[in-house]
Amino acid sequence: MAATPYASICTIGDEILIGQIVDTNSAVIARALGQAGVRVTETVSVGDSGKAIRNAIVDALKKNDIVIVTGGLGPTKDDVTKSVLYELSGSSGYVTDKRQLDIIHSILASRGLDVLGINRQQASVPDRCEVIPNRLGTAPVMVVRFPEAEYGHKAVLYSLPGVPHEASGAMEDVVADIRTSYSLDRIWHKTIMTYGIAESALSEKIGGWEEELPAYIHLAYLPDPLKGVALRMSIYGKPDDGTDPVRILGEQTSRLRGILGEAVYAEEEKTLQEVIGDLLRASGKTVSTAESCTGGMIASLLTSVPGASEYYPGSVVSYSNSVKENILGVPEEIIEKYGAVSPECVAAMAEGIRKLTGSDFSVATSGIAGPGGGSEGKPVGLVWVGISSDAGTRTVQFRFSNDRQRNIERFAASALNALRCVIAEEVSGHQQSFMEGKSA
Amino acid sequence: MAATPYASICTIGDEILIGQIVDTNSAVIARALGQAGVRVTETVSVGDSGKAIRNAIVDALKKNDIVIVTGGLGPTKDDVTKSVLYELSGSSGYVTDKRQLDIIHSILASRGLDVLGINRQQASVPDRCEVIPNRLGTAPVMVVRFPEAEYGHKAVLYSLPGVPHEASGAMEDVVADIRTSYSLDRIWHKTIMTYGIAESALSEKIGGWEEELPAYIHLAYLPDPLKGVALRMSIYGKPDDGTDPVRILGEQTSRLRGILGEAVYAEEEKTLQEVIGDLLRASGKTVSTAESCTGGMIASLLTSVPGASEYYPGSVVSYSNSVKENILGVPEEIIEKYGAVSPECVAAMAEGIRKLTGSDFSVATSGIAGPGGGSEGKPVGLVWVGISSDAGTRTVQFRFSNDRQRNIERFAASALNALRCVIAEEVSGHQQSFMEGKSA
Repeated sequence: MAATPYASICTIGDEILIGQIVDTNSAVIARALGQAGVRVTETVSVGDSGKAIRNAIVDALKKNDIVIVTGGLGPTKDDVTKSVLYELSGSSGYVTDKRQLDIIHSILASRGLDVLGINRQQASVPDRCEVIPNRLGTAPVMVVRFPEAEYGHKAVLYSLPGVPHEASGAMEDVVADIRTSYSLDRIWHKTIMTYGIAESALSEKIGGWEEELPAYIHLAYLPDPLKGVALRMSIYGKPDDGTDPVRILGEQTSRLRGILGEAVYAEEEKTLQEVIGDLLRASGKTVSTAESCTGGMIASLLTSVPGASEYYPGSVVSYSNSVKENILGVPEEIIEKYGAVSPECVAAMAEGIRKLTGSDFSVATSGIAGPGGGSEGKPVGLVWVGISSDAGTRTVQFRFSNDRQRNIERFAASALNALRCVIAEEVSGHQQSFMEGKSA
Repeated sequence: MAATPYASICTIGDEILIGQIVDTNSAVIARALGQAGVRVTETVSVGDSGKAIRNAIVDALKKNDIVIVTGGLGPTKDDVTKSVLYELSGSSGYVTDKRQLDIIHSILASRGLDVLGINRQQASVPDRCEVIPNRLGTAPVMVVRFPEAEYGHKAVLYSLPGVPHEASGAMEDVVADIRTSYSLDRIWHKTIMTYGIAESALSEKIGGWEEELPAYIHLAYLPDPLKGVALRMSIYGKPDDGTDPVRILGEQTSRLRGILGEAVYAEEEKTLQEVIGDLLRASGKTVSTAESCTGGMIASLLTSVPGASEYYPGSVVSYSNSVKENILGVPEEIIEKYGAVSPECVAAMAEGIRKLTGSDFSVATSGIAGPGGGSEGKPVGLVWVGISSDAGTRTVQFRFSNDRQRNIERFAASALNALRCVIAEEVSGHQQSFMEGKSA
C-alpha cells in the first residue's frame, strides 16, 4: 500500500444541497487528515437519499484508500446513513454497543435528561461494523474494512457523527486508527499570516520571490476577511535532493518577511486577536475597546481567545450618540462639528474608554457599514479607527465596498491590525506605519 | 428538456482540501439554485490541479444539466480553472472582455489603486466562452454551452469568481440565464425556527405529527448553535392530488405551533436578533446589553441587523469586575458575596445598563465559557442571564457542555431567546416561560 493514502470526504444532508447550512465538517476532517499526512483528493456532499449516499460512497471507495462519511447520523428521522452502512458492510443484524450506550447514559444524565428510545437507538450498529465510541455525543463512529477483492485495493470507511465538534473530536481516534494501517508520509505546511495588502497587490509584490521558489514548494494565497491573506507553502514528501523541508520553509519565510515587513503578523496559523493577546500578555499591558459601527465584534473577537480576561477589562459599544457622549464622554461639540464618523470622534472615544477602564491601550471605531446611511463625503464602507495609549492618540481611515456584514468584519479586522501595529511598535520600540489606510 | 434541471456545484481550491478554509460558496450557490427550482444533486470540491478540475467538471456534466464551478479564478498563480475552460470549450485563443475591463478600471479607481497587469488579465477569457460581467469584482462569469452530442444531453457550465460575495452576486445573473432555457418547476420550502428544545427531544415531541405528514412533504431538522433547531418542510413539484402546497404547508405550520408553543420564534428563516428587532421596532421600544462571558457577541449579533440603531443604543462589555462595578454600578458586595457568576450579579448588571442607556429592556450575561475557570458549584458551561424592564428584573440559568467558542455562542443565543420571550410577553401581554433554563 502506498505510503501516502488517498482519502475522500463525503458529507450528507439535504440541508447542504439546498444551502441551508454551510458544510464545516469537511474542512475540519480535511485538516486533521492533511496534518497526519493523508492526501485528500476531493470532498463530496450528497442528499439524504439512500441511493445517493450509497453511490457517492462506492464511487469514493473505488478511487481512494480511505473514505470518511459524516452527517446523516443524528437521532431524527431524516437520517439514512446507517442503513447504507448496513448494506455495504454485508451485515445481517444490529447489535448494541455497550460502551456507547454507557456514554449516552452519562451525557444525558449530566444534562438532567432521561434516556429516550431515540437516544438508545444511537448505540445500535450494523453487526459487521467496528465501533469507535464517541465520548462527546450519542452517535458512535462506525468503521467498515473492505478486503482488496471488493474495490481493487484495500479500503476503509469511517462514518462520523454529523455534529461538528463531535466529528472534530472523533478525528483523533480515526487518525490513530489510520496510523495502524499506513506508515504515513509527511506533509509540511508553513503558513505566513499577512494583513493589509490585497491579494492581487500581494501577488505583484512577491512575484519575483515566487518565481524563484523550488518546484516542490506549493504556494497558495488564502484570503479571509478577518485574517487577511494567509500565504501557505506546502511540501508533499521529502524533496528528492535531500533538502530539509523545515529548514527550507524557514528560509523562505525569512525572505517573505524581508519583502513584506510588518504586513506579516504571524509565521503560523493565528488570528490578529491571538497575536494581540500574545503581545499584551508578554508585556503585561491591557486593552479596551469603544465600538460604534463594529457593534461589539472587536470585543467578541478579543474575548474569543482563552485567557483574554488577563488583558481585556471590557468595552463600551456606543451605537448611539448619547452613549458616546454620556458614557464615553465624547464632547457634544465634536459630534456636532465633525459628526460621529470622524477622526475627532474616534480619538475622543478611544481616550474616553481608556479613562473609564484604565487600560494601557484602546481602540475605537466609527463608520458606515450600510446599507444606506452614507453620504458623498462619508460613503458606505468608510471607517475611522482611533488608537490611544500613553504615547498619544492616533487615527486612521479605511475604506471598503462590501455588504453590511462584510464591511463590519473588515472594519473590525482593520482596527485590530492597526492596534497590533501600535502595540508592537510601542512594545518593541520600532516604528511601524499603518497598512492600507490613510492617517488623519 | 426536463422541467426541473439537475445541477452540480463544483468548488475548487487546495485550501478546501487541506481544511484551511470552509467552503461557503457551495451553500450560497445551492440556496440560489434551490429557490429558483433547480435541484442540486451534489457538491464536489477538488484541488487546484488542472486534471482534477477537468475530471470533476466532466463527471458533473455527464450527470447534470447545469454545472456551476467556483474558485480558482483569483488573480494569483495557484489558479488554473481558466485553462480548463479553454480546453473544454474548444477555444483557440483568448479575448479581452471590454465590459469587464471597464468594471476592473472603475473598481480599482474607487479604491485609489492602479490597474496592474494581473488585474487586466482577469478580463481576458477563452474565445468560446460567453461572458456575464461581474459588477462586484474583477473576474467575470464565464459560460460554456455544450450541444447534446457532447454529454448525451444539453448541458451548460457556469464558472463563477471564488470571492464569496461576488459568487453570491453573480448567481442572480446565472439564475436569470437558466430561466431562459428551462421552465423551472417549483420547490416549496417552509422553515419553522425553534429555540430551546434539543433536536432529540424535539423529535420525540413532534413524532406523532411527523408520522401523519403527507408523504410528499419532506421534513428536515437543522440544528444551529445560534439559531436553535430549524424545521424545514419541502414539497418538490405540485402534489399529484391537487393539494395547494402553500395551503398545506401553512396548515402544518399551525399544527406545529400548537405543539411547540413559544419555542417557535419565526415561521420563516430568521435569526433571534431579527425577530427581536421586529418586536422592538413594532413597539417602539429599545434594548441595551451588559455582557461578561459573551464578550460582545450579543451586541455584535443585535447590530448585525440593518437598522439596529433604531432600537439599540449600545452596551457595556464588562469582562472585569472593576468594569462591572465602576461602569455598570454593580455593588462590590454583590460580587464579594455571590460572585460575578450569579443571579444577583446579572440582575445588577441588567439594571445598571438600563440606567446608563435609558433603554426599555436590557439583557446581561455572566458565566464560565472555559476552558478552565470552573468550580464544582459553577462548572464550565454555566451562564446566568438577567433581563430587566419596567416590569422588573428576572434571571435564568442555562448549562451547556461545549468548547469555549461554542459555549459563548450558546450563552449568547440563550440570552437572546430569553430576551425575545420577555419582549414578546410584555408587548403582547401573554405570559411566556423561559425555555430550557432554570429561573432563579
